[in-house]
Amino acid sequence: MMSLSEEITLRGHIIDSWTLPRVFDAIMDLGGAFEVVSIDVGRHRDEPSHARMRVSAPTADTLAAIITHLQELGAELVSGGDADTRPAPKDGALPPDFYSTTNLRTEVRIDGQWVPVDGTEMDVAILLDREKRRAFTRPMIDVRRGDPVIVGHAGIRVIPLERRRDTDVFSFMNSAVSSEKPKKLVIHEIAREMRAIKSRGGRILVVAGPAIVHSGAGEYLARLIRQGYVDVLFGGNAIAAHDVEAALFGTSLGVSLDSGTPVEGGHRHHMRAINSIRLAGSLRAAVEAGTLTRGVMYEAITRGIRMVLAGSVRDDGPIPDVITDMLAAQREMREAVQGVELALMIASMLHSIATGNLLPASVRTVAVDINPAVVTKLADRGSWQAVGLVTDAEPFLRELAGQLV
Amino acid sequence: MMSLSEEITLRGHIIDSWTLPRVFDAIMDLGGAFEVVSIDVGRHRDEPSHARMRVSAPTADTLAAIITHLQELGAELVSGGDADTRPAPKDGALPPDFYSTTNLRTEVRIDGQWVPVDGTEMDVAILLDREKRRAFTRPMIDVRRGDPVIVGHAGIRVIPLERRRDTDVFSFMNSAVSSEKPKKLVIHEIAREMRAIKSRGGRILVVAGPAIVHSGAGEYLARLIRQGYVDVLFGGNAIAAHDVEAALFGTSLGVSLDSGTPVEGGHRHHMRAINSIRLAGSLRAAVEAGTLTRGVMYEAITRGIRMVLAGSVRDDGPIPDVITDMLAAQREMREAVQGVELALMIASMLHSIATGNLLPASVRTVAVDINPAVVTKLADRGSWQAVGLVTDAEPFLRELAGQLV
Amino acid sequence: MMSLSEEITLRGHIIDSWTLPRVFDAIMDLGGAFEVVSIDVGRHRDEPSHARMRVSAPTADTLAAIITHLQELGAELVSGGDADTRPAPKDGALPPDFYSTTNLRTEVRIDGQWVPVDGTEMDVAILLDREKRRAFTRPMIDVRRGDPVIVGHAGIRVIPLERRRDTDVFSFMNSAVSSEKPKKLVIHEIAREMRAIKSRGGRILVVAGPAIVHSGAGEYLARLIRQGYVDVLFGGNAIAAHDVEAALFGTSLGVSLDSGTPVEGGHRHHMRAINSIRLAGSLRAAVEAGTLTRGVMYEAITRGIRMVLAGSVRDDGPIPDVITDMLAAQREMREAVQGVELALMIASMLHSIATGNLLPASVRTVAVDINPAVVTKLADRGSWQAVGLVTDAEPFLRELAGQLV
Amino acid sequence: MMSLSEEITLRGHIIDSWTLPRVFDAIMDLGGAFEVVSIDVGRHRDEPSHARMRVSAPTADTLAAIITHLQELGAELVSGGDADTRPAPKDGALPPDFYSTTNLRTEVRIDGQWVPVDGTEMDVAILLDREKRRAFTRPMIDVRRGDPVIVGHAGIRVIPLERRRDTDVFSFMNSAVSSEKPKKLVIHEIAREMRAIKSRGGRILVVAGPAIVHSGAGEYLARLIRQGYVDVLFGGNAIAAHDVEAALFGTSLGVSLDSGTPVEGGHRHHMRAINSIRLAGSLRAAVEAGTLTRGVMYEAITRGIRMVLAGSVRDDGPIPDVITDMLAAQREMREAVQGVELALMIASMLHSIATGNLLPASVRTVAVDINPAVVTKLADRGSWQAVGLVTDAEPFLRELAGQLV
Repeated sequence: MMSLSEEITLRGHIIDSWTLPRVFDAIMDLGGAFEVVSIDVGRHRDEPSHARMRVSAPTADTLAAIITHLQELGAELVSGGDADTRPAPKDGALPPDFYSTTNLRTEVRIDGQWVPVDGTEMDVAILLDREKRRAFTRPMIDVRRGDPVIVGHAGIRVIPLERRRDTDVFSFMNSAVSSEKPKKLVIHEIAREMRAIKSRGGRILVVAGPAIVHSGAGEYLARLIRQGYVDVLFGGNAIAAHDVEAALFGTSLGVSLDSGTPVEGGHRHHMRAINSIRLAGSLRAAVEAGTLTRGVMYEAITRGIRMVLAGSVRDDGPIPDVITDMLAAQREMREAVQGVELALMIASMLHSIATGNLLPASVRTVAVDINPAVVTKLADRGSWQAVGLVTDAEPFLRELAGQLV
Repeated sequence: MMSLSEEITLRGHIIDSWTLPRVFDAIMDLGGAFEVVSIDVGRHRDEPSHARMRVSAPTADTLAAIITHLQELGAELVSGGDADTRPAPKDGALPPDFYSTTNLRTEVRIDGQWVPVDGTEMDVAILLDREKRRAFTRPMIDVRRGDPVIVGHAGIRVIPLERRRDTDVFSFMNSAVSSEKPKKLVIHEIAREMRAIKSRGGRILVVAGPAIVHSGAGEYLARLIRQGYVDVLFGGNAIAAHDVEAALFGTSLGVSLDSGTPVEGGHRHHMRAINSIRLAGSLRAAVEAGTLTRGVMYEAITRGIRMVLAGSVRDDGPIPDVITDMLAAQREMREAVQGVELALMIASMLHSIATGNLLPASVRTVAVDINPAVVTKLADRGSWQAVGLVTDAEPFLRELAGQLV
Repeated sequence: MMSLSEEITLRGHIIDSWTLPRVFDAIMDLGGAFEVVSIDVGRHRDEPSHARMRVSAPTADTLAAIITHLQELGAELVSGGDADTRPAPKDGALPPDFYSTTNLRTEVRIDGQWVPVDGTEMDVAILLDREKRRAFTRPMIDVRRGDPVIVGHAGIRVIPLERRRDTDVFSFMNSAVSSEKPKKLVIHEIAREMRAIKSRGGRILVVAGPAIVHSGAGEYLARLIRQGYVDVLFGGNAIAAHDVEAALFGTSLGVSLDSGTPVEGGHRHHMRAINSIRLAGSLRAAVEAGTLTRGVMYEAITRGIRMVLAGSVRDDGPIPDVITDMLAAQREMREAVQGVELALMIASMLHSIATGNLLPASVRTVAVDINPAVVTKLADRGSWQAVGLVTDAEPFLRELAGQLV
Repeated sequence: MMSLSEEITLRGHIIDSWTLPRVFDAIMDLGGAFEVVSIDVGRHRDEPSHARMRVSAPTADTLAAIITHLQELGAELVSGGDADTRPAPKDGALPPDFYSTTNLRTEVRIDGQWVPVDGTEMDVAILLDREKRRAFTRPMIDVRRGDPVIVGHAGIRVIPLERRRDTDVFSFMNSAVSSEKPKKLVIHEIAREMRAIKSRGGRILVVAGPAIVHSGAGEYLARLIRQGYVDVLFGGNAIAAHDVEAALFGTSLGVSLDSGTPVEGGHRHHMRAINSIRLAGSLRAAVEAGTLTRGVMYEAITRGIRMVLAGSVRDDGPIPDVITDMLAAQREMREAVQGVELALMIASMLHSIATGNLLPASVRTVAVDINPAVVTKLADRGSWQAVGLVTDAEPFLRELAGQLV
């Protein structure tokens, strides 16, 4: 039966980082079989292990699927030759058997030598520049006819993240999104991480949803920006509109942020806030004209941080600064995440998922939402680097800002 | 068709308190019809209205069902004679057509005179002492054979709660359990209400779930008790066990409350904590022996507040102070809620529902849980007196305790 | 204090439809006061009522806010003159005091005569063509400099929906989104409504989320389309991509729809499915080329129904038929909803909210999602026309399709 | 530093069943260190592996905690002598360092020989009968003064469940509670498993919550009982009361199960249903008197299956068959679960958690609830034997009953 086979090797903390059992699982889940050729397990936590196995499958397709999956776990083909390419058949489309990336660092073999792929992003293609011996990621939509696209699974290897063993929150909390843990401590850990990143000149991204403003936490996010803890801000039309409404009228969806009671006509403030910015021309113009004098948008513009507001089909208005073309918005966001070390995703599902798609697995992420399903979805990044907190935006940001005075 | 009819009257703020439209709804939802005989609407918000209507229905059963429902909304039968009674057929059982109470103040007519019913609790029977011209509520289980139980719907009237028009949180928040409102303000209102109640010598009940301890909020609840803000404490085996675990080992389900990290064997601490109290004999004995020196249980016992720990079928141990017979527990709780003006139900579904069943509608309730479904269930008391907050126990109690220094 | 006042009238089933108590609430919530000048309550459920009240407020702004809110409930100004207009100050922006619409039918007074506004959509402006004595809605973004925009609140009246008293599901279920009701019966009512609409030539809209495909319900939606029960289909890139993946590979996100087990590499199928359509050029081209031979997209294209796929920032690919500019997508959707009588929103939050923004309140909506928060949000349309069901897409669509054979 | 150490061995499918990485995690999470002495990995999936490691820790307490935890993963102490006992210090209390069980099969060493512990239940004590060389579990509450209780961690070994590699739903679904998977297929697998169990004479337990009746699924559960697919039924007062209400009045909480509309006075039916059974004396008496002629309770009594109704503090009434003492209820349930191979927990949190506490890890469990948090809690049994389904009770039971005709 299992006549087709390939030999693979695995290296590193493959037991400690749960790589080996996941390899075994994957082979069997996908209908293959294996034989361990040799295994050499590290004696201490710091010693790497090494394993070599023969993987077999009943059909070539199944074997290919298994090998591809194992590569994502860090397996390297023993037999592996160079990476293959095929020209893109048309603009914005790929050869049918294109290699689709993971969010892990990847290397490809050119003329027998492993070359790092430039760019780390999930579900994109890898293009090869044979002359310069370079490889780089490229989204499907941006591929041009004739571009040399890597196909198949030969000559590709992925460098998996290893589980960190320090005592920080990102190693012990992975995928732990319980609403019943002492969250204050986790928030303090996140604050510590933010200080550490800023002190070494690193970059922090915040993806912000409108509930930040509704819940009265806008001032805390504004303060974080003012204090230099935010380098990149992602959001949509809603947070911009609500933040402007709060700045101009002191309300969010018509509810007073001072008293918590509804004042005057709700959506009227909302639409008037949007109209004010449309009258001014842009958020920046409104700041410069002295119309907009406080809030998240004000701080982001005054401080000059990189901000991308990506639209959606449910937007009112929109605020003129919102990018309404989704491909343009993705390009802006892709560019803006370069170099980010930590991403805080707060009360924002749509933009957080979009951001998650663009981030390498090595970027630490914190997902905060009161809906456990959202947190689970965002924190499930196949890595040890994601912390999920099922909680309110307001106490989260209040505590965080309080730690970062 | 609609040959059977009764005339009813309604009085008070029947439009402002939404009584009249609910009466119309009820009649039509239940298959009846109505004719407005007369209506006199108050001209200002302080003037009561008065309405008289003829309600008709196709069958006597439907008419009875409608009348019963309208009575719960405050309708009074024009034709109404005295309340009827029938002897209870056996211990712990009622005549088939017994009148089942609401959680509103009720009066019954004896010899042509309206007499207030002693006790206000939902779904219990009313017994009559004709000699003393007294009426009082009695749970089904506590009725004895031959007791005179009120049956039918004649001679009964209910005094509905009117919607308060002050600016406090309990009037504007009713059934508003959104996770997107500025909760800090609501918590400040609750703190103000608590201070007001205590300054006039009123009683406050807290129903406490184990997540209070898990989330690190035990110290805030302990502080509220120490400061005299809690007169009655309801809970179960879990909060007691977790609180003792926190006091003895510094953990909750094995997770350190200081570092947030798991320390040693989780359930082991939990079972050992329970065993410690079983060895001591009781929580009080453990306090007196100096074994238990801090926490929610310690403060409750030291301060001498009324505490009822009601068991459940999922309990480990249990802690000896936990009442394992449910009928005994209900009796204790029924007694303990007398005179309570405010009930805070925090991260506790089972015990909060049990408490809600026992409380008159006039008692203000605050339901706090991170699960919106729980909050909706608890806040849905058919009254204007319930505030529901979808949030964490920890930031809620921290903010509340911070306001009550 | 309350020196400023206006007199208003209310007509119709203002008690039965809860209008009068909501008017009282609104006045008091917003800080006003009122005096009932006269009230005439219908004696039977079919007789309309009539009320006239004087509303007063401490400031002109508060009075304006109250009047505007009361207008949304159907109040008409006694003193009301004609509607005022002001020219739009620039393209895509409105005069600061523009009148922002509700989702109810609206009329404006021109030269003393009430003229119906063409178009019913929430949060848009009303433009006036004085010469033709016409008024029509226009989204902020599409207003051109100089367009005569209605401002203030004079000369505007809104025709509120009255609560229907038939026995159908849309009258008794309003805002009832419980997960604990017998849903099968509700689904049968929806099926009956769909048959009734189709038999009179009405139009039905389905807003479809990707979980329809994941959960194995794609075949049922495909069948509804094939049988002519769907006239308009809204969705995003995800449902199109998953549906194509299911059609080409028999999987959804790599999970076999036949066996429920993961087969081969998940996201690989997903990206390959998208690439296939990009290679073909479009969904229609893939159908014509014989590549795409079954599924929801296939049926929609074959049957020639109106389909709008609106993109979002988290999209992979995207499928070429997806509109990536949000303003263009909104315009397409706005056009496509004209004449729709029933909207089924299934497992789709983003596109359903966008659709809800465009629909008049008179369109009946059914919101189906397993997340109660989503259902609550979608079903809360300030009308009696929305049914919310907290349930799975698969059993809902299976039962519905089973009723519509 | 790490001066204290113990040597342990691990055997079986310790990589495939994820035992080895969990051992590494546990040691490091708890602050220990390790050195792999030898490791011998099976070459094929059917060959067991074997590992020997030296575990060290800075303090005796930490080492004890680590060893205890590793024992729960199947580790055996190389140095291990016999199990130690100490007499219980008083009735219902244990020696402070008692060994608290897991839900896995356990063996203890007596006079150098491994003896299986009779009974498998989490968080209970093990008592030793040295004369008969027997060991058996005993809940803390049932221990009598002087009973020889096993203490410490010497001479104890746990036999971990190994991950099954067949293709059934219990191996691939473990902890997969997604609401977005094709559930119909999973339900068919469960039906197949039920048929298999019944055909070999095995026992099936159903834990049933009241939403089964509310949602109209009572008839399907009744049918499963009638057809012999249920051997043991656990529930509370609520399902009994609602089922009786449905049988006597055709409603559940006053909502008609035929039309889905509210009929007459809701809670009235509920309390009357309870009163009817109290009048009859018991459910059995009501069946025998011909009062109760259909429904879940009727079938359970007629068919003579083992039923335990365990009370709770929120119960109305209660139905006389409900056990109101929680210790008595736990004893009944503990006895009734003996020999059960499959437990279906449907829309019942409290009773399902209680049941989960009593079941060995080897019993397959299916947890069905519309609330993902409940499913996660129930399905998280530290084993490969639990399937969680986020869905409605009604379509689940309808599909299941449809498969089992």
